[in-house]
Parts: sequence; C-alpha cells; structure tokens
Amino acid sequence: MHTLQAGGKRIRPVFVLLAGKFGNYDIHVMKNVAVALELIHMASLVHDDVIDDADLRRGQPTVKSKWDNKIAMYTGDFVFALAIELMTNIGNPLAHKILANTIVEVSVGEIQQIKDKYRFNQNLRDYLRRIKRKTALLIAVSCQLGAIAADVEESIHKKLYRFGYYVGMSYQIIDDILDFTSTEKELGKPAGGDLLQGNVTAPALYAMENNQIRKEIEKVHEKMEPSEITKIISLIKQSGAIEKSFTLSDLYLQKALAELNGLPVTKAKKTLNDIAKVIGRRKF
Amino acid sequence: MHTLQAGGKRIRPVFVLLAGKFGNYDIHVMKNVAVALELIHMASLVHDDVIDDADLRRGQPTVKSKWDNKIAMYTGDFVFALAIELMTNIGNPLAHKILANTIVEVSVGEIQQIKDKYRFNQNLRDYLRRIKRKTALLIAVSCQLGAIAADVEESIHKKLYRFGYYVGMSYQIIDDILDFTSTEKELGKPAGGDLLQGNVTAPALYAMENNQIRKEIEKVHEKMEPSEITKIISLIKQSGAIEKSFTLSDLYLQKALAELNGLPVTKAKKTLNDIAKVIGRRKF
Repeated sequence: MHTLQAGGKRIRPVFVLLAGKFGNYDIHVMKNVAVALELIHMASLVHDDVIDDADLRRGQPTVKSKWDNKIAMYTGDFVFALAIELMTNIGNPLAHKILANTIVEVSVGEIQQIKDKYRFNQNLRDYLRRIKRKTALLIAVSCQLGAIAADVEESIHKKLYRFGYYVGMSYQIIDDILDFTSTEKELGKPAGGDLLQGNVTAPALYAMENNQIRKEIEKVHEKMEPSEITKIISLIKQSGAIEKSFTLSDLYLQKALAELNGLPVTKAKKTLNDIAKVIGRRKF
Repeated sequence: MHTLQAGGKRIRPVFVLLAGKFGNYDIHVMKNVAVALELIHMASLVHDDVIDDADLRRGQPTVKSKWDNKIAMYTGDFVFALAIELMTNIGNPLAHKILANTIVEVSVGEIQQIKDKYRFNQNLRDYLRRIKRKTALLIAVSCQLGAIAADVEESIHKKLYRFGYYVGMSYQIIDDILDFTSTEKELGKPAGGDLLQGNVTAPALYAMENNQIRKEIEKVHEKMEPSEITKIISLIKQSGAIEKSFTLSDLYLQKALAELNGLPVTKAKKTLNDIAKVIGRRKF
C-alpha cells in the first residue's frame, strides 16, 4: 500500500488500455494486463531503490529506507509474483512469451547497469542499450500486450510495440536530462543523483565530447563532496549537452509519432499521439 | 554458473520428471518444467542467503558473499525470470495459474519468516505454516506440474500434489533437525545457525515445552556468544526434542507414502516411494 500510494504517472497501464482500443476491448480482460504491467514496473523500482541506495522516490520514503533492504527485496519479489499471477488470466501464450522474455531482458539490463557504474569510457550506444532494457522495452511491451489481449492483428501490435519503444527511449532520455536540470522538489529525490551514483547518461556523455569536461567527470566518485559535484553539473549544463540530449529525445519522439501513421483512425490513436507529445516535452 | 555448479540434490526436477511418467511423457516438454522448478528454487536460495546473511551454501561461497547483496538480488531476479520464460513453453494455462499462485505464496512466506524471527511465543502451527510456504508447496507443485505437463488426469495430479506436499514437510523438518545435529562439514554451512538467526524450528519448539529450556531459548539474540548458543543447543538435544521432531517428520512421510497407494503401478511409483523413504530417513 505504501508503494502504491506513493503515486506515479501510471503510463504503462494507460498504454495497455489504449492499445486494447484497436481490438476487442474487454475491460475485464484488459485490466489484468494493465495492472500486471504497472506492478512489474513497481517491483523493479523497489529493487532499483536498493541498488541506488535511494531514500526518496516520488517524494515518499522508499521501502528500503522505511523498512530495509531485505524487506525491499521480498516486497519486490511478492509484487512481481502478483503481476505474473494476474497475467495468467490471459489465454494467448504469445503474451506470456513476450512478457517473460522482456523480464529476462530487464534483469540482464539491471546487472549491466551495475557493471557500467563509474565506467566513463562508454559511448552513446552503451547508454541507449541500457535505457532500452531499463525503460523502453517495458513500455513497448505494454502497448503490444494491450493489443494482443484485445486480439489485435500482428502488423498492428508490432507497430504499437515500436511506438512504445520509441516513446520509452524519448521518455528516459528526458528523465535523465531532468536529473540534471530539475530541483529536488520537482524530482521527489535529490537532483544530480545519477552522476554521483556513477550512472552515466546522455547529458554526461555529450558533455564528455569536450576533453576538459571529460577530465572533470572522470573524477566523479561515490563519496564526492556536494560542492564538487555541483560544480561538475554546472559545467555539463553550460556545455550544450542538455540541448543535444533534448534533440536526441525528440528524434525518438518523431519516430514514435511516425509509427502511429499506419494505424486506423480512432480516438485512442489521437490520445496516444497527445500523450507521446506531452512525454516528449515534459519539464518534470 | 557459480550457483549452478555449487550443486544440490535436484529433487524438484526429479519429481517433475517422475510425475510426468504417469502421463504422456515427452522429454522436450518435461525438461522445461523440470528446469524451471529448479531455477525457481535456486533463485529463492540466492535471495534467502541475503536475508540470512549466509556466507556458505552447499559448501560454496554464496552469491551475496562472493559478490554482494545487490548482485544477489538481481541474480535472483534474473534466474527467476528465466524460469518463467521456460514455463511459457507449456500450453496448459492451469500450469501457469498454479505456478504463479505458488510463487505468490512463497513470497508471502518469505516476508512472514522475517516477521517471525526471534518471536519465541509462536507454536507448532506457525512453524508448519511457514515450512509449507518455504519448502512443501514448491515440491508439491513440482509433482503436480510434472503431471499436468504430461496431461495426467486431475485426480492423479492432485494426488501427486499431496504426495509432494507431505514429502516436502517431512524433508524440511529433517532439514531443521540436521541444523542442530550435523557438523559444519556435513551441512556445508555452520551448524546451529537457525536458532542463532532467530529461526524457530521444530526442535526448539518441542524443547520449549520444558519451561527451564524455554527461558534459555528466549535469551537467544543475534550477537550471542558461540559458547552460549552451543550450551542451548546441547539442552535442546538432551530434551527429547530431536526425537519428537523425527516422529513428526515420519508422520508426514507416512502420509506421503499413503498417497502413492491410489496411483497406477509403474516404475515411477516405485521410485517415488524409494525417494520419499530416503528423504524421510536421511542423516545429512
């Protein structure tokens, strides 16, 4: 209840339900998929907060800070199991194959993310592969599984998958920008945390194209003084890296919108278009 | 690979495969279920070692000790996801419902186990409910899912479920006895660890029927001196509690063997009978 009431944007269930509108929409079927996808996301956040040693999430204490790492681990396991249980209400075996494969990929991504911490000789491709697994895959699959649960034909559920994938990439890049540009109040957690935690994201990667800034960023370590990290964040913000990151995010947004072109004209299509644009231009 | 190579008795996959012999046994189908059940067990051990802060398992360093708690958490998540992915090769939706429900129950049991630590005013029923979720359910379901994957009729896969459940209860009670009576070398981890960790098992519960021993056991806490805990373990061993625990385990073993009576006479039935007896009488 604590984790549920902390809120969130619930974009995964929204995408599930909208994708279902392209087929035989039965809310008693759809809700299983919508809730399952939100729970899988929630379970992964509970586990992520252990890795990131995060005390705040959505402005609320995390499970690991309110209780401890062990409770957080089993809470994640439990919520994850509930999600799988809900999904068993879906008859189509393809839905289970897609979801199971996605969870494997997301898990691999989580281990990769630990390995990549404080590794400053990585490139944009490493970053994109990481955010694909961290965020884009689950949003892509939310769209696809919503469609599959409503018996939508293959060419359309694959289009919805790609739409979700591109929206997810755009979304995560903006999330990573906001970690540099937002205030603690807006984020619901301390700003600049990603870099301090060794999580090398788009703004840092673009900023490192400048050799002098690269040398500063390479000095970042876990126990760095707040004043020093603030200085490095200022350098990154002044380097033009934020603007380049927004351009990258927008590229994915445009690809997402292009995927919608081939879909039948429905109210759901218009809504997906509107949501994608809001996500691609959000400021917090 | 580290976790896999540490070994184990592999009783869950053995039960899956033997249960399949009561129906249309196709190894290409059965192996998915057999491997999935062993992986789920393995994933839960990796997570349990975080909770128990265990450095050794099967005589090998645990993932949490060789790497750390965070790696152990995601390794568990990954192995668990692999198991679910393998299971999607099984067409029967009933198999998925049973497995998902079991994993939910096992997760609830893991949280309950944390809550019950160092709670000495619990009774044998609390203990039995805990070991049901901790051990017996997954063994019961190994038998049942092996049968379901081989299209065995309901009355038989339910019998196999109950057989597995009783064997699992018997097995875990003996496991809990051996934690008091075995050497570190036999266990592959330090002896007497359960009580020191606040895990109140059958021998401790029976020993607490004696008020003087109860008072000693109630003093147990995490930071207790090894010499003091050794003294308490001796008291428990001298109290007759070990013998009572063996009797309890044997009661479950007899119930398991009785379930086999109604099954068709096959080589698999004979083997299940033999394995149950070995498990019910094992000394390490």
